[in-house]
Amino acid sequence: MIVGYQGVEGSYSEEALIQYFGKEQLTKNYNQFEDVFIALEEGEIDYGVLPIENSTTGSISENYDLLKKYEYYIVAEINVKVRHNLLGIEGATIENITQIFSHPQGFEQCAKYLKTLNAKHVAYHNTAISAKYVKDTNDVQNAAIASNRAAEIYGLSILNSDISNVAQNVTRFIIISKIATTAKESNKMTLLFEIPNTIGSLYSILNQFAKEKVNLLKIESRPVGDGTFSYCFYIDIEGNMQNANIINALKNIEEVTKDFRILGNYIKSS
Amino acid sequence: MIVGYQGVEGSYSEEALIQYFGKEQLTKNYNQFEDVFIALEEGEIDYGVLPIENSTTGSISENYDLLKKYEYYIVAEINVKVRHNLLGIEGATIENITQIFSHPQGFEQCAKYLKTLNAKHVAYHNTAISAKYVKDTNDVQNAAIASNRAAEIYGLSILNSDISNVAQNVTRFIIISKIATTAKESNKMTLLFEIPNTIGSLYSILNQFAKEKVNLLKIESRPVGDGTFSYCFYIDIEGNMQNANIINALKNIEEVTKDFRILGNYIKSS
Repeated sequence: MIVGYQGVEGSYSEEALIQYFGKEQLTKNYNQFEDVFIALEEGEIDYGVLPIENSTTGSISENYDLLKKYEYYIVAEINVKVRHNLLGIEGATIENITQIFSHPQGFEQCAKYLKTLNAKHVAYHNTAISAKYVKDTNDVQNAAIASNRAAEIYGLSILNSDISNVAQNVTRFIIISKIATTAKESNKMTLLFEIPNTIGSLYSILNQFAKEKVNLLKIESRPVGDGTFSYCFYIDIEGNMQNANIINALKNIEEVTKDFRILGNYIKSS
Repeated sequence: MIVGYQGVEGSYSEEALIQYFGKEQLTKNYNQFEDVFIALEEGEIDYGVLPIENSTTGSISENYDLLKKYEYYIVAEINVKVRHNLLGIEGATIENITQIFSHPQGFEQCAKYLKTLNAKHVAYHNTAISAKYVKDTNDVQNAAIASNRAAEIYGLSILNSDISNVAQNVTRFIIISKIATTAKESNKMTLLFEIPNTIGSLYSILNQFAKEKVNLLKIESRPVGDGTFSYCFYIDIEGNMQNANIINALKNIEEVTKDFRILGNYIKSS
């Protein structure tokens, strides 16, 4: 069994993977989120690990769009605490840093701290790739925003630790697979559907959940992308596919929406 | 009167500004979205023009977050058709382009076309700034993704026109002000509130709109940012503040939410 993730060794995605599958798991890593979906499609990997939401910066829209495009399933979720640090070459000092490399969300999540520095920001695909790049340049004027693990792997010094805007910063990852799975313990579901004309109809759909006393955890809307402001909705609810109230609600919702899909029924991460 | 926008001459934001205020309007431009809010705060400008949503790539989350932070009002909205082009120095040819500069959303919106090229992508704050940069380098291997207007202003050649993934690509801009305004013709409202615990309560809030037959146009959720997955909601509805059903619905919603605010009541853009 092989599990794929986006990024390099020392990325938060790899941390999520290890948290769920353990340190001995065979892995493959990819440059782009979409590469993970393609690898799944081509049978190169059995599972993919992808970030879906951060508690400070919000949803990772690209992965929502890819879930729709590739029609695979969510089989699990994992919350990972994000601890960003400013990393540099041995001998580097904060005062002399002129360029900082990170993922755009790394910059966003540390914006308050970064305002106290006078350095250029260079966007990279991944926090760990940016750490690797800084190591490769061997330039004491360069720094990266990345994890403790990235510092260890790439042999960088921690110039400043825990530089996020908020003390608590959590990223929620999903595990995707070609095969849907569910168990008695599964207590969370993700649904996807399109409402051809949002006006008025969104409420009547949510009403189906209310009638069956189903709790809504999250509503994410993404544009259909046809040049109009029509949306498809990704809705997280509490429950198990086998519950009678869930079955009733889903039956009624499927009848009034377009392209209704159950993306997964899995255990909510604490 | 002075109107501020983010970006440089030739940006889509400037196009939105001209569409609403006319070509003779005195303007000031800024590097970052937040600079526009700060300029409004400091009385440097009377209005700000900001993108809030694109029909292909979705919401511009940063501006939603800034609307919450600065507590100003939306007084109008304008839809602007986005026509992206590949722009280069005179004499440049598509085959020889090695680096392309644009806003990250420019790359996202033209992803299909860009896959046919073999060039590095460099992210810039703004499509027009990237056009200006390409002109400044005077290097035939550089190209930018930007508007027709940016090509004109910076004297670049259009190497390929209309390269967006979809033929129809519209960005919705908002006009913000320190002073809330509304008129008889205002038929759209934006509301903001926080639900301390999303579970179960979102539905009961939407139910208030349903009871009063108020149409929902859009729901946008953003994390509260305290490390939990709690959300604040930006809800667009149809209606005017003076309508009895709107007054009833808002009164009931204010009672059950936290930090309830009316962000604006304005005319829906066609």
